[in-house]
Amino acid sequence: MCPASKSKHIPRATIQRLAIYLQVLDALDNENVEVISSERLAAACDVNPSQIRKDLAYFGEFGVRGVGYNVPKLIQSIKESLGTDRIWRVALIGVGNLGRSLLRYQGFLKRGFQIVAAFDCDPFKIGDTVAGLEVMCPRRMKEHVRDLHIEIGIITTPAERAQRAANHLIEADIRCILNFAAARIQVPEHIYVEYVDFFHHMYALTFKYCIGEAQRAEKTPSS
Amino acid sequence: MCPASKSKHIPRATIQRLAIYLQVLDALDNENVEVISSERLAAACDVNPSQIRKDLAYFGEFGVRGVGYNVPKLIQSIKESLGTDRIWRVALIGVGNLGRSLLRYQGFLKRGFQIVAAFDCDPFKIGDTVAGLEVMCPRRMKEHVRDLHIEIGIITTPAERAQRAANHLIEADIRCILNFAAARIQVPEHIYVEYVDFFHHMYALTFKYCIGEAQRAEKTPSS
Repeated sequence: MCPASKSKHIPRATIQRLAIYLQVLDALDNENVEVISSERLAAACDVNPSQIRKDLAYFGEFGVRGVGYNVPKLIQSIKESLGTDRIWRVALIGVGNLGRSLLRYQGFLKRGFQIVAAFDCDPFKIGDTVAGLEVMCPRRMKEHVRDLHIEIGIITTPAERAQRAANHLIEADIRCILNFAAARIQVPEHIYVEYVDFFHHMYALTFKYCIGEAQRAEKTPSS
Repeated sequence: MCPASKSKHIPRATIQRLAIYLQVLDALDNENVEVISSERLAAACDVNPSQIRKDLAYFGEFGVRGVGYNVPKLIQSIKESLGTDRIWRVALIGVGNLGRSLLRYQGFLKRGFQIVAAFDCDPFKIGDTVAGLEVMCPRRMKEHVRDLHIEIGIITTPAERAQRAANHLIEADIRCILNFAAARIQVPEHIYVEYVDFFHHMYALTFKYCIGEAQRAEKTPSS
């Protein structure tokens, strides 16, 4: 059974912060830091300490008063609660610039995700090898997904091919889709979809900058 | 003056959704759709109609009752409110796999961002041309940022070099940083930073999947 089942009510914003905590804790673990106080962890994560304590309490981690959290144990607890204390096998569809860079990215396996198959409908790409994987025709997806025990599909096609890619994944019985394409996709209810769109970060930057500049202009007396 | 100054209180979650609306509206505009009801827009964005109406009301867009929103006008309003109705000039630092794929990505310019300079401290990369840009030494950043009127810096270095990259950007008077590196960075208060970390999407998928499977298992009578 999936370990996350014990913590059904973790809100989305908490999962987002858990990803940050995990990143920071992994870096601490690499430096052989064994124990960290919630205050120091909070500062490193740019989150306030009470928020961290509240987030970690969701899955029963309270730390030791006056001492703090045990780093390797906390990493293990977070991974268990997210379901990433094991390897998830992943297929990628769309071997363009972004697809290639994700296939070559070493960070996936460190976090519990292994890309084991790459698909593209372009006949000129089929048969190429990228990061040790042979690019395959999406028509052969179903057999590969079954044989390779793939559970997650990543879409990195152009926007106009995202829906077709999603259809291939769904037909191959993949239930979890991470969509990097700049398009919304329609999926049946039993399919889980997450969209990666870094433009909202760009917009948040330009928006904050504009607000900041406007406030600065207000403070500066006009002559 | 920055157009966003008129709408200071747009919450973060709304900005995130504005990015979705903009993506969907741009696709509609490309298909020459001129008017869309909030119901249809909501369905295409996978958001409920009252949420869309509330979000758009933040910057004075109410649509016409019984008709809907004028697509090109709404795109323009959203862009104005986010400050992206003009081109922002961007520098990228870290020309690895991800950096290269972002340099080659056509989507930036469509959304109002133009990458005009690329930096890397690797002497074997300096002087290379990627997507028409010569890779330059970060030590020369300050003069290039000034000459090219760059306002945003994108960090795509390995995690352990992210802080050094941020320092270069800050010394070059860049105020807005988009950090793709898997590391938190320390910056002075007047610098705006956004982190792009798609792993929280992966975690959200594995978490939802585990919850879903656990619920299915509960429903299935054990024999």
